[in-house]
Amino acid sequence: MVWMPKYLDLDELSEEDRMLKEEVHRFAEEVIRPASIELDRMPPEERVKPGSPYFKVWKQIKKLGYHRMYLPENKGGPGLTPLQRYILFEEIAWGSLGFATALGVDMIPFVSAAFFGTPEIYEDLVVPWIEDSEGKFHGCWGVTEPEHGSDYLITLREEPELVAKFGKGNVVAEKDGDEWVISGQKSAWVSSAPVATHCGLHAQLKGSRSIAEGLFCIVPLDADGVKKGRPADMLGMRDDPQGELFFDGVRIPEHYVVVAPGFFYGVFFDQLLCLTSCGMGAFAVGLARACFEEALHYARQRVQGGVPIVKHKNVKLKLYEMFEKVETARYYVRKATEYTHKKIIEQQTADASPRHARAAQIYAKKIAYEVAHDALQIFGAYGLIKEFVIEKFFRDARCMLIEDGTVEVLSLEAAEDVIDNYEKEFYDVNHVMRVLG
Amino acid sequence: MVWMPKYLDLDELSEEDRMLKEEVHRFAEEVIRPASIELDRMPPEERVKPGSPYFKVWKQIKKLGYHRMYLPENKGGPGLTPLQRYILFEEIAWGSLGFATALGVDMIPFVSAAFFGTPEIYEDLVVPWIEDSEGKFHGCWGVTEPEHGSDYLITLREEPELVAKFGKGNVVAEKDGDEWVISGQKSAWVSSAPVATHCGLHAQLKGSRSIAEGLFCIVPLDADGVKKGRPADMLGMRDDPQGELFFDGVRIPEHYVVVAPGFFYGVFFDQLLCLTSCGMGAFAVGLARACFEEALHYARQRVQGGVPIVKHKNVKLKLYEMFEKVETARYYVRKATEYTHKKIIEQQTADASPRHARAAQIYAKKIAYEVAHDALQIFGAYGLIKEFVIEKFFRDARCMLIEDGTVEVLSLEAAEDVIDNYEKEFYDVNHVMRVLG
Amino acid sequence: MVWMPKYLDLDELSEEDRMLKEEVHRFAEEVIRPASIELDRMPPEERVKPGSPYFKVWKQIKKLGYHRMYLPENKGGPGLTPLQRYILFEEIAWGSLGFATALGVDMIPFVSAAFFGTPEIYEDLVVPWIEDSEGKFHGCWGVTEPEHGSDYLITLREEPELVAKFGKGNVVAEKDGDEWVISGQKSAWVSSAPVATHCGLHAQLKGSRSIAEGLFCIVPLDADGVKKGRPADMLGMRDDPQGELFFDGVRIPEHYVVVAPGFFYGVFFDQLLCLTSCGMGAFAVGLARACFEEALHYARQRVQGGVPIVKHKNVKLKLYEMFEKVETARYYVRKATEYTHKKIIEQQTADASPRHARAAQIYAKKIAYEVAHDALQIFGAYGLIKEFVIEKFFRDARCMLIEDGTVEVLSLEAAEDVIDNYEKEFYDVNHVMRVLG
Amino acid sequence: MVWMPKYLDLDELSEEDRMLKEEVHRFAEEVIRPASIELDRMPPEERVKPGSPYFKVWKQIKKLGYHRMYLPENKGGPGLTPLQRYILFEEIAWGSLGFATALGVDMIPFVSAAFFGTPEIYEDLVVPWIEDSEGKFHGCWGVTEPEHGSDYLITLREEPELVAKFGKGNVVAEKDGDEWVISGQKSAWVSSAPVATHCGLHAQLKGSRSIAEGLFCIVPLDADGVKKGRPADMLGMRDDPQGELFFDGVRIPEHYVVVAPGFFYGVFFDQLLCLTSCGMGAFAVGLARACFEEALHYARQRVQGGVPIVKHKNVKLKLYEMFEKVETARYYVRKATEYTHKKIIEQQTADASPRHARAAQIYAKKIAYEVAHDALQIFGAYGLIKEFVIEKFFRDARCMLIEDGTVEVLSLEAAEDVIDNYEKEFYDVNHVMRVLG
Repeated sequence: MVWMPKYLDLDELSEEDRMLKEEVHRFAEEVIRPASIELDRMPPEERVKPGSPYFKVWKQIKKLGYHRMYLPENKGGPGLTPLQRYILFEEIAWGSLGFATALGVDMIPFVSAAFFGTPEIYEDLVVPWIEDSEGKFHGCWGVTEPEHGSDYLITLREEPELVAKFGKGNVVAEKDGDEWVISGQKSAWVSSAPVATHCGLHAQLKGSRSIAEGLFCIVPLDADGVKKGRPADMLGMRDDPQGELFFDGVRIPEHYVVVAPGFFYGVFFDQLLCLTSCGMGAFAVGLARACFEEALHYARQRVQGGVPIVKHKNVKLKLYEMFEKVETARYYVRKATEYTHKKIIEQQTADASPRHARAAQIYAKKIAYEVAHDALQIFGAYGLIKEFVIEKFFRDARCMLIEDGTVEVLSLEAAEDVIDNYEKEFYDVNHVMRVLG
Repeated sequence: MVWMPKYLDLDELSEEDRMLKEEVHRFAEEVIRPASIELDRMPPEERVKPGSPYFKVWKQIKKLGYHRMYLPENKGGPGLTPLQRYILFEEIAWGSLGFATALGVDMIPFVSAAFFGTPEIYEDLVVPWIEDSEGKFHGCWGVTEPEHGSDYLITLREEPELVAKFGKGNVVAEKDGDEWVISGQKSAWVSSAPVATHCGLHAQLKGSRSIAEGLFCIVPLDADGVKKGRPADMLGMRDDPQGELFFDGVRIPEHYVVVAPGFFYGVFFDQLLCLTSCGMGAFAVGLARACFEEALHYARQRVQGGVPIVKHKNVKLKLYEMFEKVETARYYVRKATEYTHKKIIEQQTADASPRHARAAQIYAKKIAYEVAHDALQIFGAYGLIKEFVIEKFFRDARCMLIEDGTVEVLSLEAAEDVIDNYEKEFYDVNHVMRVLG
Repeated sequence: MVWMPKYLDLDELSEEDRMLKEEVHRFAEEVIRPASIELDRMPPEERVKPGSPYFKVWKQIKKLGYHRMYLPENKGGPGLTPLQRYILFEEIAWGSLGFATALGVDMIPFVSAAFFGTPEIYEDLVVPWIEDSEGKFHGCWGVTEPEHGSDYLITLREEPELVAKFGKGNVVAEKDGDEWVISGQKSAWVSSAPVATHCGLHAQLKGSRSIAEGLFCIVPLDADGVKKGRPADMLGMRDDPQGELFFDGVRIPEHYVVVAPGFFYGVFFDQLLCLTSCGMGAFAVGLARACFEEALHYARQRVQGGVPIVKHKNVKLKLYEMFEKVETARYYVRKATEYTHKKIIEQQTADASPRHARAAQIYAKKIAYEVAHDALQIFGAYGLIKEFVIEKFFRDARCMLIEDGTVEVLSLEAAEDVIDNYEKEFYDVNHVMRVLG
Repeated sequence: MVWMPKYLDLDELSEEDRMLKEEVHRFAEEVIRPASIELDRMPPEERVKPGSPYFKVWKQIKKLGYHRMYLPENKGGPGLTPLQRYILFEEIAWGSLGFATALGVDMIPFVSAAFFGTPEIYEDLVVPWIEDSEGKFHGCWGVTEPEHGSDYLITLREEPELVAKFGKGNVVAEKDGDEWVISGQKSAWVSSAPVATHCGLHAQLKGSRSIAEGLFCIVPLDADGVKKGRPADMLGMRDDPQGELFFDGVRIPEHYVVVAPGFFYGVFFDQLLCLTSCGMGAFAVGLARACFEEALHYARQRVQGGVPIVKHKNVKLKLYEMFEKVETARYYVRKATEYTHKKIIEQQTADASPRHARAAQIYAKKIAYEVAHDALQIFGAYGLIKEFVIEKFFRDARCMLIEDGTVEVLSLEAAEDVIDNYEKEFYDVNHVMRVLG
C-alpha cells in the first residue's frame, strides 16, 4: 500500500507483522483518529450518550477482534506474538491514546478470567466477550481509590506498621454464603467506567489490615447497588471517558472472584502490573511517534525567513532529539514486552521483571510528553489552536505522566526492585573501589 | 489585612507599595480569577458576546484606573514607580494571565499616542481613554501576521538581501491626501482583538522593501473596511479572546499615524519591545507564583502513606525548586523593569537594554511553564480535572512559551545583542586564555 | 581603563563601585588567575610548601586588605556596602574559585570574633589579623566531619529522636578550669586547612545529645595536640588546599570560645550560614561569568564551515542561555546579599531569610556548573586539554555542587523554611481553589 | 562464578554469550581497570614510555585475541555474533573507556584492509596483525584535522559551494609512479597515536576540491617523514594516549591504499561511521553501567541521618533514573549494532541506517555523562577525590560528549538523515492534519 510508513524498522518485521501494522494503522488513521478528535471536543456527558462516536468506533474494534489480542490460541485468541501485540497497541495509540486505553482496560477483567478463572466463568463471561463483534461488552479496571491513587502500590510495599495504619482500602468484600458482597468507592479516574459493562475490581477483604489482603473479581455494572459517577471533565484523554464507581452491597456469585485472597497480592497483581506497564509503554510510543510525525511534516512545509524551518539548525536538533526519543523508547518497550509476555503469557510463570516493565512505562511516558511538548512548540501559535491535532496530543501526553501511576511513584516502585535485587552479590568479591589506594 | 501574603519581600516594600499590592491582589483574587475561570470554560463565541463576564471585569479594571498605570503624572497618569507597575502586573497575572494580557495590550495604542502622538490625537483619543471608567475603550496590538509570527523581528535583523526577499509584510499603508489607507491582514493571535475598539497597528509602507520600513498608527475598529475574524479556540489564555483583523482600504486621518516611518524601526519598535518584554516577564512571575502557591497549599493538605505529601523528600525538593524559580525570576524581572522604565519612561531615551529585557521575558516564561508543570504533577490526577484551577494555569503557562514571541525566537534575538555588544573590547588586552602555556 | 568590562550593569554602579570592580578585576586577572592555574597543575603536597605560588598571592590579598571586607568601620574594616562586598567576591572568583574560597574561610574565625567575641580576643587575635599585610594569618572553618557532611544541618533539624540517635558529633569540647579541651576530627574537606593558622571550630559539648548543642571557638593550629592530614587530591578547586584537622586534647583559653552553647545553634550558626550562602552565590556567579566570557570569546573566533561558530543558530542559543543564567543569578544573589547583610551586619539582628540565602547559593551553583559545561562543549576537543583554562573552570564548577553543602541537601534545608513559613495564613480566607465548583 | 553480575538480561544470553561476558568482565575488572587508574594519574609522557602499564595490558588484549573480534571466520576471525561483539565492547569499557577506545581504533586500519584491501596487503599486514599475541601491532585512526574536527562530516554534506570554499583538507595524497606521497597534519585528538604502529589515514587527493574527494590508506608510523606530536594532557580518557601525527612526503606502496577515491566517500566512509558509532555506543553503556554500579554500591553502604542513603526518596529516584538510562541505552545500542553488523559485516552491503547508528552513539554518550554526573553527586565530597574511581569515570564521561564527534554535530548529521529520509511519502495520502476542520 502506498501509504505504509517507510521508516526503517530495526526489527525487520516479517511480512505478517507488516500486514498487521498496515491494517491497524489504516484503521487508526481513518477511523479512530477522526472520531477521537470529535470526542475530544464534546462535553463529558455527550460523549457517553448512545449515538456518540465512541460507540461506533468501539463496535468496529470488537468486529476487528482486537480485544482478543492477549489470548493465546488455546484460550480462544488469535495467537499473536508479543511483537505483534506491541505493534497493535502502538498503532492504535498513534491514532488515539483514549481508544488504546479503552482497549487495554477492556481486557483486564476478561483476560484475567480466562487465565485464572474457573471453567464456569470462562463459559459465562469470557466466551461471550470473545465472540462479541458488536460492542456489547466493555470491561474496565477498578483499582484506584480516592485515598489511594498513585501510592496504592507503594503503600503496599512500605513497612508493615505503615501499611496497617494507612493502607486501609475503600472497597471491601465479604463472603456471604456462596456470594460475595461488595461495598465502597473507586475514584473518578477509572478509565472507561462510564461506558463499561463489567469491572475487574480490586477489593480488600473485610476486616483485613490493608489493601494487600484482597481479591480480584468481576462485577457486572448492571448489578443492583452499582452506581456510576459523572464522567470527569479532564485536560486530556477525553476520548476515553473516566468516572467513579460506587458499590453498595453489590452481590456477585462466588466464581466471579477470579483471584482469591493470598494469591492476589505478590502474584497476580505483580504480574498484571508488569503487563499493563508494557502496554502503557506501547501507548506512549504510539503517541510520541504521532507527535513527532506531525512536527516533522509541519517543519518541512512551514516557511519562515525564506526557507522551510527544517533548515534551521535549532529546529534540526529538536527534530533529531524527538526521533531519538521515539526510537530508544520503542525498542526498549518492545524488548521489555517480549520478555514480560514470554514469562507471563507463554510460560505462565510469575517471573517477569518489575523494574524493566516499570522502566518501559516510565521512560516511554516521559519521552511522549517531551516529544509532544517540543512538537507543539515547532508549530508556534498554530500549535495552540484546536484546528491542529498536536494541541490534543499535547494534552493527552500530559495526562500520561499521571494516568496509571504517576511517573514519580512508578519510579519509586522500580527503585525498590533495583535497590533490592540488582546484582546483589556482585560486589562481594574483589571490588576495585575498595582496593584503590 | 489577614489575607495579605506574608512571604518575605527582599525589596522590603514601602507602605504605599504594600497597600497597592494588597488592593490589586484582593481584586485579582475576588473578581478577576473567578471570572477568568468562568470564561475559560465558555466556547470562544460566547466569551465575546455582550453580557459575558469579560466585560464586567473589564469595566471594573477601568474603574480602578489600572489602564493608566504606565502614564506619568504629567501625561494624566498616577505616577507609579517602576516597582509599583511591576507589582500591579504581577498581581493581576496571579489572578489571570488573560486579563493581564488584555490590560497590557489595551495600553499599547493609547500610551504610544500619549508619548509620540500629536496634541490632537492626545485630545481625540488619549484623554477619553484615560477618563474611561466604564470599559468603553479597549486597545489591542496589531503586530503578528500569518507569514510573520515569531520571526517578525528576526527577519528584520537578518542580512539585507534576506529581508528584501522574505520580509514583505501583509498589512500595507499608503498616503492619500491627508489620510492614510490601510489594507491587509493580521493573524489570529491578536490578543483582545475580538473585544477591542482600537488597534495599535504596525503597517509596512506600500512599495517599500520590508516590514522594517513601516509606521505605527491607531485604527478605530469600527472604521469602514475593518473586519474581525472568529475568536480563536485556544489551548489556554482563553480568558483573553484572540482573533484576526482584516483591513480593506481602511482610511485614518494623518494624525492617527503615531510613529512615522524612519523613526518607527530601530527606535520606537525596539523600545516598545523592551517594555512589553518586561511586562510579559511580570505576567509570567504572577502566573508562576499562583501555581506554586496552589501546589504548596495542596501538598500541605494531601495525605498519602499516612503523612502530608509535603513530608516526602522528593516533594520537598520539587517545592523548593518551584520557590527558587519564582524568586529568581521575580527579582530579575523587577531589576530589568526598573532599568527599562527608567531609561524609556522617565528619561525618555532609546537606551534600554534589549538583551536584559528579552531575558527577563524568556526566563520568566520558561520558569512559569516549569512551575506550572511541576505544580500540576503534585496534584496527581486531581490536577487533570477542571475542578482545580491548576489545570487552567498549566494550559495558560504552555501558551506563554509561544505568545508574544516563542522563547526560541526571543532567545535568538537576545543572542544577537549579546554576541554583538557584550564587553566588546574586553578581550583586547592581556587575555589569560592566550597566555596559557 | 581600556580593559574594564563594558557589559551593562542593571544596578548602574556608582563611580566608587566601578573603581573597586576594576581594581579587583585587574588583580584577579593579572595575579590570581595565573597563579591559580599554576597551582591547579601541582601535586597537592607541592602546593602547600613554602615558596608555592599560593603564599605569594595570599600575601598580596592581605596587603590589599581584602580580608577586612566584612568588617564595618567601627570594627576596623573599610565600611564597604553589601553591593561592594558582592562585587569584590564576584571578581576574585572570576579569577579563581579557590582563592575566593580561601578569602571567605579566612574571615570566618576572625570576623565572628569581631562580632561575638570579648574585647580580649579582639585585641589578641582580631587586631593582628586586621593589620596583617604579609599573610601571617590564615583562618579556616572547621565544620564538616566524616560522619556529618552535607547532612550536618539537616540532621540538626530532624525529629528530636533522630537527632539523639544519629546526631552525635565527632569533635567534642569540655570545660576544664578556665580552659576548654577539644578532641576529635574534622573531615578532609576543610578548605585551606593545610595552609591555615587558625580554625573557627564547631564543637559539640561533651556529654550533650547532638551537634546542635555546641559552641564555636577559635583554635590556633600551632597548639599542642593539633595535627593536619595530607592535602586532598581533588578533581577541582585545587588552588585552595583542603585537608583534615585532628584535635587530641587541645587546650584553648576560655575567651577563645566566641559563641557559647545556647546562643550557638539557632542564632549564630543560622546567621553565619546565611552569610556564607550569599558568599558562595557570589563565587558561583564569578566563576560562571568567567566561563561564559571564555566561550563567547572562543565562539567569536573559531571558524567552522567557513564562518565563526557564533553564527550557527544552535551556538547562538547556547550563548544566550549562558548569558541568561549568569545574569539571573547575579541579580538574585546581589539582592539576597543586600538583604542578608543589612539584617545581620548592619542591623545586627538574627533576622535574615534562610530560604533566600540558601536559594542564592543553590541557584548560582547550579547555573555555574551548567554554564561551565556548556562553555567547555563550545570549545570542542580544545576544551578537554589543559592549555585552555575552561578545562580547569569546569572541574572547579563541578566541585561547587558539593562544596559547602551539596545542592540537594541545601535544597532540602531551604524547603523546610519554605514549607514551614511561606505565607502561612494566606490560604485561610477565601481561597479560590475551594470555591471552584 | 560467584562474582558474575546477576542483573537480569532481557536478551536472555546463551550459555556461550554468558561465558564470554564473564571472561571479558573478569579481565576488565582484574587487569584493565587497575592499570587504567594507574595510567590516569601519570603525566602524559610517562604513559607512553616503554614499561608503562599501557603496554602490559595491550599485550594481554592481543594475547586474548580481542582485536580480532570484528573479523568473520573466513577472514581469520573468531566469528562472533553482533551481540557478542557488543558484549565484549561493553565489558571492556566497563573496565576502562581508554582501553576500549584503543581496541576500537586498533582495528580500523586492519579490518578495513581485510574487507577492502588486496590479497597482497592482507598477507603483508592483516595476517601478522591477526596473529600478533604480543602487542607488536597497534593501529590508530587518522581522521580529525586542526580545521576539521567535529564538522568534518557536516562540511562534506553542506552545499557544494560551501564545501568548495571551506572543505579543504590538511592531509593530501598524490600518486607518484607506483607509490603515493602523503603530506599534512592530523590533529592532537588521534586516539592511540602516540603508541600506534600503523595509521588508517583519510587523505584528500591533491588538487581536488574537498576532503570528500579522498582515499583511505594505511601508513606505517615508522615510515620516513612521519612525526608524532607530544601526547595531549587531557581532562579524561587519559588511559588512551592521544596526539598529533605529521606527514612530510611520506611514501607508501600503491596497495596500502585500501579504499580508492570514488568509493571512499558515500560508501566506505558512511559504513565505517555506522560501525564506529555503534562501537562508541557500546563503550558509553559500559562506562555508564560502571558509574551506576559504583553509586548503587556506595548508596547501599553510606549512612547519613541514621539510615543508608538508599532509603531516602530523592536518592531512590536518582538511582532509578540511572538504571533507566543504562538499560534504555543498552538495548537500543544492541539493536542498532545487530542491524548495522548484519548489513555491513554479514551481508556486506552499504545499507546500514546512519540515523539509528548515530542515535545509538549520541543517546548512549549523553546518558553516560548524566549517569556519571549523578553517580558522583551521590558520593558527595568523596566523589571529588582520586581515591574513588568515580572521579575518573566522570572525567572520562565528560570527554565522550566530544570524542569521535561532539553530540551536537552528530545530532545535526543524524537530523539530515531523519529530515531527508524518514517516511517520505507517508503524508501524501489522507493525512488527518489537513482534514481537520
